[in-house]
Formats: sequence, C-alpha cells, structure tokens
Amino acid sequence: MTPSAPLPVWLDGRLLSAAQARIDPADRGFLLGDGVFETMRVAGGRACHFARHMDRLAHGAAVLHMPPPDRATVAAGVQALLAACALVSGSLRLTLTRGTGPRGLLPPVDAVPTCLITATPATPPSTPVRLVTATHRRDEGSVLSRIKSLNYLPSILARMEAAAQEADDALLLNNAGHVAETSASTLVACLDGRPVTPPVHDGALPGTVRGVLVEAGLLAVGRIEVATLREACAIFTLNSLGAREVVALDGRAVPRRPDVLAALRACAYR
Amino acid sequence: MTPSAPLPVWLDGRLLSAAQARIDPADRGFLLGDGVFETMRVAGGRACHFARHMDRLAHGAAVLHMPPPDRATVAAGVQALLAACALVSGSLRLTLTRGTGPRGLLPPVDAVPTCLITATPATPPSTPVRLVTATHRRDEGSVLSRIKSLNYLPSILARMEAAAQEADDALLLNNAGHVAETSASTLVACLDGRPVTPPVHDGALPGTVRGVLVEAGLLAVGRIEVATLREACAIFTLNSLGAREVVALDGRAVPRRPDVLAALRACAYR
Repeated sequence: MTPSAPLPVWLDGRLLSAAQARIDPADRGFLLGDGVFETMRVAGGRACHFARHMDRLAHGAAVLHMPPPDRATVAAGVQALLAACALVSGSLRLTLTRGTGPRGLLPPVDAVPTCLITATPATPPSTPVRLVTATHRRDEGSVLSRIKSLNYLPSILARMEAAAQEADDALLLNNAGHVAETSASTLVACLDGRPVTPPVHDGALPGTVRGVLVEAGLLAVGRIEVATLREACAIFTLNSLGAREVVALDGRAVPRRPDVLAALRACAYR
Repeated sequence: MTPSAPLPVWLDGRLLSAAQARIDPADRGFLLGDGVFETMRVAGGRACHFARHMDRLAHGAAVLHMPPPDRATVAAGVQALLAACALVSGSLRLTLTRGTGPRGLLPPVDAVPTCLITATPATPPSTPVRLVTATHRRDEGSVLSRIKSLNYLPSILARMEAAAQEADDALLLNNAGHVAETSASTLVACLDGRPVTPPVHDGALPGTVRGVLVEAGLLAVGRIEVATLREACAIFTLNSLGAREVVALDGRAVPRRPDVLAALRACAYR
C-alpha cells in the first residue's frame, strides 16, 4: 500500500508541508503535556461548531493560565488549511501548547504558545461499538477531567485495554464508581426512552456536541450508575466527529433504538 | 542579557544542534502526552544512578505497552552528549515517547518510539523551600501516579498554585487526603527523629533517590497524615537533582534538622 502524501499543516501562522513543520524539542507540550486541544468535524468544507470549540479551548487555556489564541487568526488558519488540503469532509485538530521553556515545571512568564492545526480527510467510523469497562478510572475530582488537555494517557490506556479484549471502545467509570464517559466520547444511555448523559462533576468532559444536544433539550444530564447502564434501552457514544450505537457492553448485547440515534444525529451534525 | 548558545541534543541516535533537532508534529508525545521521562543528575561528568533511571523508564514504558529503549544505545548517547556539551555537573533529561501515529488514541502496532536526551548545565537550587498545600490532588488509584509519564499537568498546576502564593513548591495530597509528594519531589518528614516518606500506593512516585535511601535503611515508608506532617521535627524534599529542607509549610515555620539532611544527602548523592 502506497501511503498518500501527507497533507500540509498550519503552525503558528504559517502553512507548511508536513515535512517542514517542526516542533521544538523544548516545547512543553512535548515535554510535559502542557496544553489543550480540540478536534473538529469538517463537513461541507467548513469546521462545524467552530465557536463552541474555540470557547472550550479558551476555557481550557484559562484553567492552565495560558493566553487563548486569537480567534480570528485561528479562523483564518482553518480556512487556509482547508483550502490548501482541498478538504470538504473529515476532521481538524487544533493543538495549543504552552510553547518552549527552560527545565522545570514553572512556565516562563514570557511563554509564547505553540498553535498547530492539522487536517485528516478520513471520516471516522460510524459503525456499531462493542464497549468494555476499563479498569482505568476518570479522576472526577481533578479540574483536568473538565478540560481537553494533552494529558491523554488515562484514555489511551483505557482504549488499549478495550482493544486487548477486541472491543472498540472503553467505558470509563470515575473514582466513585459512577459512569463518566468513554475513552474519547460522551456516553449516552437511553433510560425510560430518554437519552441521559453523566454530569461534568462525575468526570464527563463537557463535549461540544453534548452541549448542543443538552441545549436543544434532546439530552438530559444525570448520574448514571453501572447497574442502571446495564438496563438501558440503548447506549450511544458521541463526540465532535459522530454518534455511534453501542451493541455490546462487557460482552452482553445492548438493545438498539435507531430512532433515538437518528434524532441525536440530526440535531448534532446538521 | 545575552543567552548562551543552546547545547546540542541527542535525538534518536544522533547528536544534533538544538536548532536542527525536530520533533514531528505527529509525535504522540506532543499530541497526547504519550510517553515517559527521566531526569538524571550529572556529577563528575557522569549520569548518577543511571541503571536505576533506566529500570524505572523501562517499567514506565511497560505500563504504557511501549518497548523500552536499548540500554547500551542510551548509555552511548548519554556519553556522547555529555562529551559534546563538555558537561561535568548539571542534569540530563531522557524523554521517550510512543513516536508518530495517525489520528486516534490507539497507537499504531508499528510505532517507533522517539528518544530525546537533553542536557542542562545549571545545578538546581538547594536552597530552603517554602511549601504550600495545593488544591490539586494526586490520583493515587491511577497507575499513572506510579510512573514518570509525560502527563505532568497536575504537578504543573500545583506548582503554579504555589508560585501564586510566593512559595517554592507545592505539597500534593492524594484523593483520600493523605500526604503524597511535592510537585516534583519525594516528601520526607522527620517523625520522632526518623525520616519517613509516603508509600507508592498513597500516590508517591517511586523516586530513584527515594529508592536508594529506602534500600540503605535511612528512609522508612509509611502513611503520613496532614496533622502528623504539621508536627514533624523536620521536612525535606528530595529528587534526583538534590535534597532541600522545608522551612515553612502553609506559612508556618518548620523546625530544622540539618544533621538528618546531611545524612540523607551523603547517602543519596555520594
């Protein structure tokens, strides 16, 4: 298989070929996971829910005491990258790190953030999901569970645990044992016919599409116990890139509600 | 102030100038904090406790299901870098990431780790420490609290919290409220004249120098309650780069035991 040529990237205000783009070995994103990111769906040649993604990025940056990127600059970067890649559908990732710094944990006062935007043409799978409960937990007490930071190892380990069991995704419980989310998606349980998702204080990342659905009144927020989840009339995972139905949880078949899934999709990705 | 020229670095088998060294924007260390690292003290022109650092790095890599670097290659890299930098005292940092990968959490099966070694001539401070208790907690239930991963935001946030209070370092409690460690050091409390440090299952990173002192019988391991710490006859922080005495905890003066500090230093950094 011959891989296609890598797409250009946008790095700190410049369009560059992937081979030209260089991250400094002293970048704190690389050394310490010191940063935040967003993944955006691209449809019809534009980044969906761009304003919501920028709002969340700015909030995450504020939690880390980093300046947010200039929104107009990022918007122009997104446009330039989409055009350079001739990308109509797929996804974009925006990575914002603290930038370079000397040895040590304390960021330099004059840190200049690194801002990288990359594009991926592939549309993520919308196929059914076999879910298994991971032993790795979501630390709901940490402010980091409420922002999309570069500290992604808990989710990576959970996802690898799922893959080792030939499952597609991992269910993460929080330290108190309640349902939090999956490795990179909001979890939705259909309870008494009504879609419900765990609250942020139970370790759920405030997902952009989650926010769209909650505001539209299509998704309720409430604690989900493991025992309740096992009795759900349907389970879905959703994130910026798509919604999928869960067909198995820890090896047990989960009922399906394609009508509910269709309603969520119609609102989230219209 | 004219900054001195950046020192060369060792990256994946090659000595490079800092300007030549390039981290790929698709490196999972940069994108997801997917990796581990070690910081080694350099004294007398050699990396101290090299074997212990390599053991811990290999353990951390195993937890992440990554292949460890070849030890002889790293040893040669360390030697080459120390020579190229003419470094006699200071520190080295060895960073090992998963390497590059396509979009998504699951690492590619053929991932080739990135291995970076950088040198710093500055000797870290051995001055007294004013410590404040951070609101950020150490998640003692996570396997990540037991390896030195690139997911360093909890410590960064704690350290920034301390700096905002004009303190030098942050004390991290675990989720259960017991003493775990400081932002980048093992915490040692002198209790009834005997140095004690929290157990790994309370969220203490198994530090290399901590291990040296425990094996030498100079440091006991036991749970430390916050109330007990406040009554300690002395408190120290120690890591690979040095041991320091704590002179204040949350604004209250801490008694000093320079004799105990000297004994710990003599064993750890001989």
